[in-house]
Amino acid sequence: MSQSVIGEGDDILLYLNRSRTYLVRVEKSKSFHTHKGFVQVEQLVGKPYGARVVSNTGTEFVALKPLLSDFIFKSQRKTQITYPKDVALMVMFCGIGSGSRVVEAGTGTGALTTALAHYVKPNGRVYSYEIREEFTDLAMKNLQRAKLLDLVEFKVKDITQGIDESEVDAIVLDLATPWLVTQHAHSALKGGGALVSFSPTIDQIVKTVEALQQSGFVDIETVECMMRGMQVERGKTRPETLMTGHTGYITHARKALT
Amino acid sequence: MSQSVIGEGDDILLYLNRSRTYLVRVEKSKSFHTHKGFVQVEQLVGKPYGARVVSNTGTEFVALKPLLSDFIFKSQRKTQITYPKDVALMVMFCGIGSGSRVVEAGTGTGALTTALAHYVKPNGRVYSYEIREEFTDLAMKNLQRAKLLDLVEFKVKDITQGIDESEVDAIVLDLATPWLVTQHAHSALKGGGALVSFSPTIDQIVKTVEALQQSGFVDIETVECMMRGMQVERGKTRPETLMTGHTGYITHARKALT
Amino acid sequence: MSQSVIGEGDDILLYLNRSRTYLVRVEKSKSFHTHKGFVQVEQLVGKPYGARVVSNTGTEFVALKPLLSDFIFKSQRKTQITYPKDVALMVMFCGIGSGSRVVEAGTGTGALTTALAHYVKPNGRVYSYEIREEFTDLAMKNLQRAKLLDLVEFKVKDITQGIDESEVDAIVLDLATPWLVTQHAHSALKGGGALVSFSPTIDQIVKTVEALQQSGFVDIETVECMMRGMQVERGKTRPETLMTGHTGYITHARKALT
Amino acid sequence: MSQSVIGEGDDILLYLNRSRTYLVRVEKSKSFHTHKGFVQVEQLVGKPYGARVVSNTGTEFVALKPLLSDFIFKSQRKTQITYPKDVALMVMFCGIGSGSRVVEAGTGTGALTTALAHYVKPNGRVYSYEIREEFTDLAMKNLQRAKLLDLVEFKVKDITQGIDESEVDAIVLDLATPWLVTQHAHSALKGGGALVSFSPTIDQIVKTVEALQQSGFVDIETVECMMRGMQVERGKTRPETLMTGHTGYITHARKALT
Repeated sequence: MSQSVIGEGDDILLYLNRSRTYLVRVEKSKSFHTHKGFVQVEQLVGKPYGARVVSNTGTEFVALKPLLSDFIFKSQRKTQITYPKDVALMVMFCGIGSGSRVVEAGTGTGALTTALAHYVKPNGRVYSYEIREEFTDLAMKNLQRAKLLDLVEFKVKDITQGIDESEVDAIVLDLATPWLVTQHAHSALKGGGALVSFSPTIDQIVKTVEALQQSGFVDIETVECMMRGMQVERGKTRPETLMTGHTGYITHARKALT
Repeated sequence: MSQSVIGEGDDILLYLNRSRTYLVRVEKSKSFHTHKGFVQVEQLVGKPYGARVVSNTGTEFVALKPLLSDFIFKSQRKTQITYPKDVALMVMFCGIGSGSRVVEAGTGTGALTTALAHYVKPNGRVYSYEIREEFTDLAMKNLQRAKLLDLVEFKVKDITQGIDESEVDAIVLDLATPWLVTQHAHSALKGGGALVSFSPTIDQIVKTVEALQQSGFVDIETVECMMRGMQVERGKTRPETLMTGHTGYITHARKALT
Repeated sequence: MSQSVIGEGDDILLYLNRSRTYLVRVEKSKSFHTHKGFVQVEQLVGKPYGARVVSNTGTEFVALKPLLSDFIFKSQRKTQITYPKDVALMVMFCGIGSGSRVVEAGTGTGALTTALAHYVKPNGRVYSYEIREEFTDLAMKNLQRAKLLDLVEFKVKDITQGIDESEVDAIVLDLATPWLVTQHAHSALKGGGALVSFSPTIDQIVKTVEALQQSGFVDIETVECMMRGMQVERGKTRPETLMTGHTGYITHARKALT
Repeated sequence: MSQSVIGEGDDILLYLNRSRTYLVRVEKSKSFHTHKGFVQVEQLVGKPYGARVVSNTGTEFVALKPLLSDFIFKSQRKTQITYPKDVALMVMFCGIGSGSRVVEAGTGTGALTTALAHYVKPNGRVYSYEIREEFTDLAMKNLQRAKLLDLVEFKVKDITQGIDESEVDAIVLDLATPWLVTQHAHSALKGGGALVSFSPTIDQIVKTVEALQQSGFVDIETVECMMRGMQVERGKTRPETLMTGHTGYITHARKALT
C-alpha cells in the first residue's frame, strides 16, 4: 500500500526511547536538535523507514514511519489530552470504516478528527463542527501533516443549533453538552446509525442517556475504560505505578426510526 | 456509502434490549422465533434500517444494520471471547487502515480477522494463519456473513514455521507462543511496521517482550485495559457490579532495521 | 493471647480448598456432611488448630481457627454482601481501636458490626441501630457465634430520628440515606471524631458529601476500592477473569467544632 | 475511651484542607509556620479536639486529634510509601485484634508497625525485625509519637535467618524475599495462624506462593487492590484523574499442621 522509502517532505517519527520520540519533517539542510545532539535528517532521504541514524554526539535514533496514533498523540496540547484507549473504543463503537460519512463535534485540536479521517479513507468524509475558530485552524494544520486534510470538511458552527448533513453513518461527540445534540443527531443519521459521545462527568452521562432515550435511540450503553501499563522485565515484571485514573465515559447508541 | 434499505439476503440485528439481540438473515417466508414470539422478517424487505417490527405476541423489535462489532461479537463461541476493548486497541496500535496488508495468527473463529478485514477495505488484504483447519472453516463462514471474505486469505499453516508474505504493514498475534513468531515477523514487516500481540499471562508477555527486543523491534509497550459498564439512571447511577476482571495484555512494537 | 487447642462448643473453619470452607460448631457425636463425605468433628476436641482431619471417604480437611474475616463473610446472606476490602478500609478510616465507642447503622446481618466489635475489644462498645427487627435478631446470632455479643448494644431504632449516645469516637453508616444522619452524627461525635459512610450510588455520595459540609465536618474524602484476585502459578500467572466491578463508595470525614 | 481536650505535649493534626495537614506537637510558646501564616499552638491547650484556630494572617485551621492513619501516613519518607488500602487489608487478612502477638518484618519507617501496634492494644505485642539499624531508630521515633512504643519489640535481626518467637498469632511481611521466611514463619505461628505478605512484583508472589505451599500453609490467596478517589461536587462528580496504578500484591495464608 504505502511507500516504504523516506522522501523529502515526509514526516518521520524520530525514536530514541518510549519517552523520547519526535515528529519531524524531512527537509534539505535540516538538522534536528535533541538533548542527545543534532540529527541531520536530510541524510535519511532514500532510506527505508526503520533505518537507524546517529546524532553528532553518537546517539542512535530510529526513523519510524508515523502511525495514526503518532499523528493523533503528537498533535495535542497538554491541557486536554485524548487518550488512545478512548479514541480506539469510540472508533469501534461508531462502526465506521472505509467510505463512511461521519459528523464530529467539537473539532478541538483534531485528535479524534485525525482518527475518523484515517478510518474513512479513501472515499469517506468527516464533517467536523467547532465554534472556536482558532481550534479549527490548529486542527487543519494537524490534519494536513497527517495527509488527511482532503477527507475533512471543517465547519465553524455550533452543532447544538443543528446539523447540515443527512443520512450520515455515525455521529461522534466530544463536547460539554452532548444532550443538546441528540435530537439533531437523530435527524442527521441513517436508520440504525451510531452515535458515540465522550464525557468526563457523571452528570453529563445521565443527561446524555436521558436525551438519547427521548430522541429515539436504542441499544444505549455507557462504559469506562482504564488502561494500565506494565513494566515487563524478567524477574521484575509488575504494573506501572503511575496511571491515569480517569479520562471520561463513553456512551454509544443507535438510531431507531420513530 | 452503504444502502440504507433492507434487502432480501441481508443480515439484520434484531434488537429487543441490550441483552437480547439477534443476528438474522432476511429471507422469504422466514419467521424468526424469540422468547417474545415470532417475527416475520420477510416483511422488513424494502424498509429502512432502524425500522420497528412487532412479533405475533405484540412485542416491538428494532431492525438494526449490523455494525462491525455485531459481526465480531455475535460470531464467537462462548469459550474464548475476544473483547471489543482489546480488538479496538489492537487495531489502533497496529496502525492499519484502508489498503493495509496485515498478517494475522491464529485465525480462531475469525473475530479479530473480521475487524482487520473491515479496516483494510477496499483494497487491503489480511493473511490469516491457523493450524486447526476446523477453525478456518468456521472463520470463513463468519467472514462471509460479514461480507468481508474477499479481503482475507486463509492459510492452514503454522506461523511459527515462517511467514510467506513480505513488506507487510502490520502483524497481529493472538496465539499461545508469540515469542516463536517475532523473528519471522521482523522479516515479513516493512521497516517501521507494527507488531501487536495479545496474551493472557505474565509469562507470555515476558517471553514476547524479550523476543521482540532480540529480534530488532523498538518502541515496545505492554498495556492492560479494563472496561467497566455504568448503570445510568437519574438518581441511581453507579458502576455495574459485574465486570470482566482480566482478558489479556496487549504488547505492541515496531520494526527497526538492523 | 488465645487458646490454641480446639474445645467442645468452639467454632472451627473446616477447610477443603479456597472455594470450600465451612464454619462448624464442634459438638459431641456430631458428624458434618460435605460433598466429600462425613467429618466426625468430635474427634477434633483437644487437637490444636491447624490439625488435619479425614472424612469417611478419605478426603483431608484442615480445622482452622476462624479469623475475624471468616465470621464476617460466613454470616452473610448472598443478597447483599459486604466485602473485606470495604470493611477493612472503613475500619481504618474511622480510626477506632481497643476501647473505642462506635455508633453504627444499619445493623443488617451484622457483618460490619462484627468487625467493629472485634476491633474495640475488650473495653469498647458498639451501638448498632436498625429499624428492621428481624435483622437485629439475625445479627445477634452472628455476633454470638463470633463471641463478640457482649461488646454490642443493639437498638431497634431509626437513626435518622436521632442518636442517643454522645461523645462517641466514630460513626459508621451503611444505610440508604446517610445524609439524613450527618447532623445527628455531628452532635453525637467527639470533636475530631470520624464518620465513615458506604453507598453504592453516585447520587448518595453527592448528597452525603453536601450534608457533611453543611453539618460541620472537614477532611471529607470519597474513594472507591477495586480488588482483583491473582491466579498464581509458575509460568501461568495472571489476574483472575472474574471480578466484582463495583460494591460501593466510601466517604469519610471528621467533626470540626462549629 | 480517650480524652477529648488538647493537652500540652499532645500531637494534633492541624487541618487546612485535604492537601494541607500538619502533625504538630502542642508546646509552650510554640508557633507553627505555614504558607498561610503562623499558628500559636499553645492557645489550643485546654480546648477540645475539633476546635478552630486562626493564623496571624486570618486563615482558619482545625485542630484534629490524629487518627491511626495520620500517624501512619505522616511518618513516611516519600520514597517508599505504604498505602492505607494495603495496610487496611493486611490488618484484616492477618486476623489480629486486641491482645494478639504479631511478628513483622521489615520494620522500615514503622508505618505498618504503627498499624499493628494500634490494633493489638492494650495487651498484645509486635515483634518487628529489621536489618538496617537506622530504620529501627526512625521507626522508634514514629511509634513514640503515636504513643504505641510500649507495644513493640524492635529487633535488629535478619528474619530470613530465623524467628525467635513461637506460638504467635500472625506474621506480616513487607520485605524483598518473603519466600525465605515461610519455613521460619510456619514454625513460629500457632496452628491456623495467618501470614500476610506484601510484594510489588509478579516474580515475588510466584516464589512466595510456592514457598507457602511447600511450608505447609493452606488457604493461600493473592489479591491486588486499586483505590481511586472521587471528585464529589453536585453536577460535576467524577473519578479523579490522578491515581496510583500499582503499589503491590497482598498474599495471605494460614498454617496447617503437617
